Amino acid sequence: MIKGLSRAGLGHVGDLDNFIKLASEHGFGSVDAGGEELAGFIAKHGLDNAQAYLQHHQVIIGSTYLSPQWRTTEEEFRSGLIQLAKDAQAAAALGCTACCTYVLPATDHNAAHFMALATRRLRTCAQILGAYGIRLGLEFVGPHHLRTAWAHPFIWDLPSTLDWIDTIGENNVGLLFDAYHWYTNEHSIEDILNLNPSQIVHVHINDAMDVEVSKVLDNARLYPGEGVIDLGGFLRALKQIGYQGIIAQEILTQQPPSESTELLFKRSQAAYNKVYHAAGLE
Amino acid sequence: MIKGLSRAGLGHVGDLDNFIKLASEHGFGSVDAGGEELAGFIAKHGLDNAQAYLQHHQVIIGSTYLSPQWRTTEEEFRSGLIQLAKDAQAAAALGCTACCTYVLPATDHNAAHFMALATRRLRTCAQILGAYGIRLGLEFVGPHHLRTAWAHPFIWDLPSTLDWIDTIGENNVGLLFDAYHWYTNEHSIEDILNLNPSQIVHVHINDAMDVEVSKVLDNARLYPGEGVIDLGGFLRALKQIGYQGIIAQEILTQQPPSESTELLFKRSQAAYNKVYHAAGLE
Amino acid sequence: MIKGLSRAGLGHVGDLDNFIKLASEHGFGSVDAGGEELAGFIAKHGLDNAQAYLQHHQVIIGSTYLSPQWRTTEEEFRSGLIQLAKDAQAAAALGCTACCTYVLPATDHNAAHFMALATRRLRTCAQILGAYGIRLGLEFVGPHHLRTAWAHPFIWDLPSTLDWIDTIGENNVGLLFDAYHWYTNEHSIEDILNLNPSQIVHVHINDAMDVEVSKVLDNARLYPGEGVIDLGGFLRALKQIGYQGIIAQEILTQQPPSESTELLFKRSQAAYNKVYHAAGLE
Amino acid sequence: MIKGLSRAGLGHVGDLDNFIKLASEHGFGSVDAGGEELAGFIAKHGLDNAQAYLQHHQVIIGSTYLSPQWRTTEEEFRSGLIQLAKDAQAAAALGCTACCTYVLPATDHNAAHFMALATRRLRTCAQILGAYGIRLGLEFVGPHHLRTAWAHPFIWDLPSTLDWIDTIGENNVGLLFDAYHWYTNEHSIEDILNLNPSQIVHVHINDAMDVEVSKVLDNARLYPGEGVIDLGGFLRALKQIGYQGIIAQEILTQQPPSESTELLFKRSQAAYNKVYHAAGLE
Repeated sequence: MIKGLSRAGLGHVGDLDNFIKLASEHGFGSVDAGGEELAGFIAKHGLDNAQAYLQHHQVIIGSTYLSPQWRTTEEEFRSGLIQLAKDAQAAAALGCTACCTYVLPATDHNAAHFMALATRRLRTCAQILGAYGIRLGLEFVGPHHLRTAWAHPFIWDLPSTLDWIDTIGENNVGLLFDAYHWYTNEHSIEDILNLNPSQIVHVHINDAMDVEVSKVLDNARLYPGEGVIDLGGFLRALKQIGYQGIIAQEILTQQPPSESTELLFKRSQAAYNKVYHAAGLE
Repeated sequence: MIKGLSRAGLGHVGDLDNFIKLASEHGFGSVDAGGEELAGFIAKHGLDNAQAYLQHHQVIIGSTYLSPQWRTTEEEFRSGLIQLAKDAQAAAALGCTACCTYVLPATDHNAAHFMALATRRLRTCAQILGAYGIRLGLEFVGPHHLRTAWAHPFIWDLPSTLDWIDTIGENNVGLLFDAYHWYTNEHSIEDILNLNPSQIVHVHINDAMDVEVSKVLDNARLYPGEGVIDLGGFLRALKQIGYQGIIAQEILTQQPPSESTELLFKRSQAAYNKVYHAAGLE
Repeated sequence: MIKGLSRAGLGHVGDLDNFIKLASEHGFGSVDAGGEELAGFIAKHGLDNAQAYLQHHQVIIGSTYLSPQWRTTEEEFRSGLIQLAKDAQAAAALGCTACCTYVLPATDHNAAHFMALATRRLRTCAQILGAYGIRLGLEFVGPHHLRTAWAHPFIWDLPSTLDWIDTIGENNVGLLFDAYHWYTNEHSIEDILNLNPSQIVHVHINDAMDVEVSKVLDNARLYPGEGVIDLGGFLRALKQIGYQGIIAQEILTQQPPSESTELLFKRSQAAYNKVYHAAGLE
Repeated sequence: MIKGLSRAGLGHVGDLDNFIKLASEHGFGSVDAGGEELAGFIAKHGLDNAQAYLQHHQVIIGSTYLSPQWRTTEEEFRSGLIQLAKDAQAAAALGCTACCTYVLPATDHNAAHFMALATRRLRTCAQILGAYGIRLGLEFVGPHHLRTAWAHPFIWDLPSTLDWIDTIGENNVGLLFDAYHWYTNEHSIEDILNLNPSQIVHVHINDAMDVEVSKVLDNARLYPGEGVIDLGGFLRALKQIGYQGIIAQEILTQQPPSESTELLFKRSQAAYNKVYHAAGLE
């Protein structure tokens, strides 16, 4: 399982060139980046050099972000489809095979109607991504406070999300599986062992403060191994089912971290060493 | 547009033979019936005689009812699929091309999750029906009191239902369009004129009492022309968009009607004459 | 049914502004145009003025052309998807709701494998178009000489194309129904009467020389009414089933027409008057 | 990877009870059986006892056979759907999660049209099976002589079949991957390593005579390890990609085997020991 990074929790990382370089220097094998950023990276270097730069640093693009706005109106949604095709083209050119989005656990829309619309929109996105060999990962979001942050409950746990993925009905849709949401849903190791690795598009890790599970805040995340989530068990179970993809760090916090980027990379590196060790992975 | 009947509002109609005979004698050209009833009708007469009986009475089978339980568990749902294939086979053998179900406007399930499950289940039903050349009609249910009869709002109006039909994504899914639900949603003639006739699988008519729209009860329906719904306008608009299918009566009441079946057929016949005349149809 | 034009058969029509103006002056209500042309038209005038120009001339955009190359490699296909989204955006902005492509009746690929690939590619196109409210029309191509112009037979008639549309399985896919291909397949008026108007996305007319049907060449088309196709019957049947869309002229010839564009518009106008009259339409 | 058996190559095995018992006694962990046979087994024992019998013998039902006739007419196809639902119900009750069919490499139908029809029909089958948690496995058929046994080429290799599976577009469709067809297509170990285990529903092994690959006959199969196929490499590659399912023997021969069933089970047991050993699996 490849150690990966998103920008969240690393301070001012700079451009993608620098992000890739720093990731490589600190033992990471993938970085996540937006589609426009990937296109800019290609435009700046030329495709061959861009690919060579990744190759040289032994870093791959782990996942890109789903850019169309699928949560509001048809007009907004459709206005993002040209960009989606551009994102997919750039991502595919750099060998990236995942594109992810998160699912808020509540909505101000009628929840049933919104589910119907979202299903159709994400199916369209999956079709476009699929033409470029890219999978779509859906991230359920577990923290309890968000379940009542909007008028109507939506979905927030693993079984509902798996059902939804089935309903979308495209072969290239799966989970963005985040340890924080696994933890806040009080899902078990057994739940992971029941997954097929082909159901997982991307994985996030991070850690939670030692408070009651129902009080865990979405943007109060800790570095892996600094909190109470059983990340050793989480990673071991993923390994056991045969998952061979990326484990990307995503640390969402209320305030930007105060340490230097250099220290934050070192801290992340140490964090990964700790939890991979706890999982018996190295 | 073919004048049709369901059993609702006609008292003790007896078996399908009798229902067809009475419908024919009172100027109706279609009857709705359940799949098991259709299979029984074929078993009793033999297929050729069953077809000849319909032909002789100039009556077609308007629609059958979706028998699998798609509103509860996967187990219940799947346990109904063999029967669905049998229903479809019987219906198709008798030339019936529609199968309908209604959608309650609220649910005790998480509404978003239930929408995902229902979408998948109804898609499966549509696929099975489609193999037999049968379309699936979904009936949105408008009365306001039902919108809060269960814990969470589901969908109850025309635009949401059309979106859902799109999401289900099978070519053979459309509306069961009921005048009562059109009225209780305060939809307009314009809303009908914006429909394409291919979006309509089946039509129900009946009439509403002269009370505030938000107080109209689902099971307090009147015979066409005896209440306040603009059924003339409703039918005229359907005719105008080119709908050539069935207009079936469905009178849901709290108490069974006290009149004789003979009188109820006559009353229905007169009711249809009145509203078809109001619509300029005859 | 709206009288429409494609550029084929009209000589040097000039830019879209001029095409619209000439169409309007000669009694036509729609023109077909490519997606890039539509985008250029919007860029030149601004969207509001572009819409007003169409409105002023009482002309709509009948159909646009499917630009992605779906007949060769995955790479070529996917490289066209950004343009498809741009085409769809431009077309939708101008109120165009149809995008069409033709299906060659033979292929040098393995026909079964190509059918699988083409189904998937056209489904992706339909999804993208569908997000913009645009339908995809597939034109079967009847002339016999083309059926053996490549190594393996593909499909060329109405029933096969309807089956294929079902298989693609998106709600917004239908026929581009061309009188020439109806004729060269020796399809009947009855075949038209069996269609539902919702199955037809766009219609082409043109006429055929008085030679054996199996000898009719694809690029030897005549103006409507100048040949042997029963266009009166063809149009009457379309009217009868309730088709209310566009009837666009498409005259493919080996040599460009020698007459002036002005004369070709007049000739087309007279041709339409003749066949609409024969159909009892005016 | 579970050692499994089909009846092909074992002589007169008797009823399912006996087949399960003999499989168990000779070191096999799964048997394949038809849907009606499974239903009969349940009817005979009652579901609880049927499950207990399997449990007692440590044998599972590996795969069942797709019973609807999807290669001929719509009428034949649809007439098999009730049975398919019954098959699926029986198979699911016994814990079987696979249902397989083979794809002939040529057809007397127009190959493109047949591909369209077959795609639609198999999608319907996949939907029905999916409702019961069962996957559909498609077996490409490699022997060269069959590619010209009917008028038009269809598909016979791995890449085409994977494309087709994508086109069918249901999540629960994958490969029945047979070593004989891998061999006769001259596919490589690398081709297996490029598969994701989730793409494989079921695996067949058997061996081929030492003749030119293009001369290998479909019904001249040998027991594993008695011929020239690199079954060690085949199994090792499947293991390497993480396949954990069934490896079922299927020996198709022109004449029924002359040995006793007892000897044929022993021969199969020895054959599996040999090739599993060659693969480094035990």
